[in-house]
Amino acid sequence: MKSRPFVFINAAMSADGKISTYERKQIRISSDADMKRVDELRAGADAIMVGIGTVLADNPGLTVRSGGKNPTRVVVDSMARTPMDAEVISRKDGPTIIAVSRSAPYERVEALREKAEIIIVGDKHVSLPELLGELKSRGINRLMVEGGATLNWGLICEGLVDEVYVYIGNMIIGGKDAPTLVDGAGFKEPIKLELLGVENMDEGILMKWRVR
Amino acid sequence: MKSRPFVFINAAMSADGKISTYERKQIRISSDADMKRVDELRAGADAIMVGIGTVLADNPGLTVRSGGKNPTRVVVDSMARTPMDAEVISRKDGPTIIAVSRSAPYERVEALREKAEIIIVGDKHVSLPELLGELKSRGINRLMVEGGATLNWGLICEGLVDEVYVYIGNMIIGGKDAPTLVDGAGFKEPIKLELLGVENMDEGILMKWRVR
Repeated sequence: MKSRPFVFINAAMSADGKISTYERKQIRISSDADMKRVDELRAGADAIMVGIGTVLADNPGLTVRSGGKNPTRVVVDSMARTPMDAEVISRKDGPTIIAVSRSAPYERVEALREKAEIIIVGDKHVSLPELLGELKSRGINRLMVEGGATLNWGLICEGLVDEVYVYIGNMIIGGKDAPTLVDGAGFKEPIKLELLGVENMDEGILMKWRVR
Repeated sequence: MKSRPFVFINAAMSADGKISTYERKQIRISSDADMKRVDELRAGADAIMVGIGTVLADNPGLTVRSGGKNPTRVVVDSMARTPMDAEVISRKDGPTIIAVSRSAPYERVEALREKAEIIIVGDKHVSLPELLGELKSRGINRLMVEGGATLNWGLICEGLVDEVYVYIGNMIIGGKDAPTLVDGAGFKEPIKLELLGVENMDEGILMKWRVR
């Protein structure tokens, strides 16, 4: 048995693969039906993970809107840059874990420790395999990843993603510097996927892939 | 009546919106059924347009594989950088037009003129609206655009694209510097699309959009 949770990425992107504009401005790509689907996915997950870039750009609360128990929120934040007033730690709607590296400034980590559980893994960057092992040992069996582009890359690159669900909104965002579904360095040889399903949803498309 | 052809972009991208790797290495994203579809689209077009970046990176021949009359090939090449041995002018399978700007070096233009028709439009960059007007006046009513990312951006940005067809291959390429379906500067406010259709094709997805 795997010593990590089942991991799926959920995201919304434009028809040209962007998850926000070149200015990192939060724009609505999802449709109403997709928002509902995302809410159900969150409610069925033991934890929801985001990268620090997403916290800084979007300041998401990561709670389940339809009510019920909120999953644990996990922020991958190598240098402990999560703002003290970030929604993800301010909203007392569920437990929050902030994963930092051993290079994170001591005072920042201690300050965050008052608001969230801290997991320290990795020297300069959070070690994602170790972090997933820690989450598994805390009873997290189903982990939803909500971006951004760099965390998605890190997880896929390490072979830690099982499935990828993407809502394609009816728009083109463009921009060579706009964040895409998967950024980072990029593969020389692409990672292969298996199509689990595709359907029209509202004015966009929902596609589901399994990582091979 | 519009003084330009009907313009559609056709492309293949990865599930994360990339049209090649960060190294610009040509990789096969299309499936067999998609290759056949692209060939039919080419056969039904009066002209096929690509940007100079695509000529330099992929050196495509842009001919119809299934036989029959080849459409006119059009290269958007502001500085007349098309190599003399590029497939697009070496293969005598149909007429080729190279569109250059008034800033293109005289000798390069004269050399290319021996192998292709030259259209000079725009001061530093090829003026795409003027070019499409010139193509229309030459009887080109249906123009297929086969990338790359920068030409796609230029055309969409100028409001010159009617439809966009994208095959999504079953792979993730990743990379913040990998070319995407639409690069360039990017929009602050996304361009809206209307979904014309989506279907599973081979192991990927074919989506068709109308630009609003």
